[in-house]
Amino acid sequence: MRDFSSGHEWLSINTATVRKQWRLDRIINECARRGIRAIAPWRDQVVAVGLQNIARQLRDTGTVLSGYCRGGFFPAADTAGLAAALEDNRRAVDEACTLGAPCLVLVVGSLPGALQGQPAYHDIARARREVREGIATTLEYARQVGMPLAIEPLHPMQAAERACINTLEQALDLCDTLDPARSGALGVAVDLYHVWWDPKLAQQITRAGRERLLAYHVCDWLTPTRDLLNDRGMMGDGVIELRQIRGWMEDAGYAGYAEVEIFSDHWWAQPGEVVLDTCIARHRGVV
Amino acid sequence: MRDFSSGHEWLSINTATVRKQWRLDRIINECARRGIRAIAPWRDQVVAVGLQNIARQLRDTGTVLSGYCRGGFFPAADTAGLAAALEDNRRAVDEACTLGAPCLVLVVGSLPGALQGQPAYHDIARARREVREGIATTLEYARQVGMPLAIEPLHPMQAAERACINTLEQALDLCDTLDPARSGALGVAVDLYHVWWDPKLAQQITRAGRERLLAYHVCDWLTPTRDLLNDRGMMGDGVIELRQIRGWMEDAGYAGYAEVEIFSDHWWAQPGEVVLDTCIARHRGVV
Repeated sequence: MRDFSSGHEWLSINTATVRKQWRLDRIINECARRGIRAIAPWRDQVVAVGLQNIARQLRDTGTVLSGYCRGGFFPAADTAGLAAALEDNRRAVDEACTLGAPCLVLVVGSLPGALQGQPAYHDIARARREVREGIATTLEYARQVGMPLAIEPLHPMQAAERACINTLEQALDLCDTLDPARSGALGVAVDLYHVWWDPKLAQQITRAGRERLLAYHVCDWLTPTRDLLNDRGMMGDGVIELRQIRGWMEDAGYAGYAEVEIFSDHWWAQPGEVVLDTCIARHRGVV
Repeated sequence: MRDFSSGHEWLSINTATVRKQWRLDRIINECARRGIRAIAPWRDQVVAVGLQNIARQLRDTGTVLSGYCRGGFFPAADTAGLAAALEDNRRAVDEACTLGAPCLVLVVGSLPGALQGQPAYHDIARARREVREGIATTLEYARQVGMPLAIEPLHPMQAAERACINTLEQALDLCDTLDPARSGALGVAVDLYHVWWDPKLAQQITRAGRERLLAYHVCDWLTPTRDLLNDRGMMGDGVIELRQIRGWMEDAGYAGYAEVEIFSDHWWAQPGEVVLDTCIARHRGVV
């Protein structure tokens, strides 16, 4: 298992972590001056500065991506909506290519309209079929341009609104259906916040193996957790056994970044410098 | 599949649903006068009126139990804590017998102290071992007195504090370990709030079968859900496909009560009469 205690060369910052403090160009500079080599930016943050500007800044600062957030949200109430989602995912793949991302992370979506409090239908099995078809179609294109897709299982508490893929096993079953050859074109993003509780976590990480383990996201689970979305904890402040799970990941062949992704009203209220410095310290201390 | 539209003979009320409005003796009377035949009371509600008083009132009103809430919370930081939990579960089994319950529902517990915000350890695998051992010991006694134990998988968002058994599959695996003969002494309580999202739900209900399906709890999942504990929805107000899942239950052999269990700040703020009448109407309309 890699020793993270003496450096942070395998630290990546998911830029949602400081999205309320800084624009993306500032985030990239603040990371670069701290020796943080990698980030995972969100599409809206990229748009706010300009795709080509960000691509240039990444090159200039020597910053790489650990993933690009995000494609997905495939289900829709009608044919036009399904087509629009496919078109949007194609654009996300193109942007990921422009930025040199190692993968496009997919938050697959679920009951259409549920995020706005008005689900167009209640049939989660239908949403799962639409997700499967949406990924299959997007995968055809992503293969052509060489952009791996990383399915991110989301916590079951977000099953209605954000993702109807809720366990690593379910994500891997879908990978096996759509990419039985384990070609590297389709895999998973293992975000500990979403999967830490799963009694089959170790088994499924082993099953995934190097070809499927495309991204690894860390934060912590607080007790109590006060909000279903924006109360993630800083590594070390909660109950997730971070070192143990990273051991499983590395035993299975994962050798990439540990990407810190913290949606937190608490941390968004701190100075960005404090957040990044804390991420570095915790990366060395507990990740 | 049974037709619930013309009556509510298979409606049970988990008494937590109106716990903030009424004491248990009042709840029993209010249910009885509405033709609600069954309830599932909580231990603290029973204690507040007196075990023998409640047993007598159940007989006098012809009310039966669909389950007794609850045993469990097996993990502990030390040997004394583990022994205390076993002793408490033995008392819960005895109370369930006195009340003529068809099963004692187990909310198994997880990281000790996490419910109070101070987990004594972070090793959920250890908690799961302690749960297995606690159920095994309790089962020996429960078998002697003829009280079935129903393991209730809780939603993964409650995995740190309340239950480290979080899927039906995990609960059934444990049942198969401790009661391979499917004797009827050990099974599961299927609470839709906790398991509705599970992609393996239909498969695992079928696997459970009549011998393991000891209780069935209904409510709904709201979009958005604003609280991790006390924002359950009334049946029909959320996204759970109630009829479809009851169909799976009945196909698997379940023929008992649909027990309404709603923890909700909204419904606790309504008059108890309104809550019970709404439960009856929704039981007929959508359950």
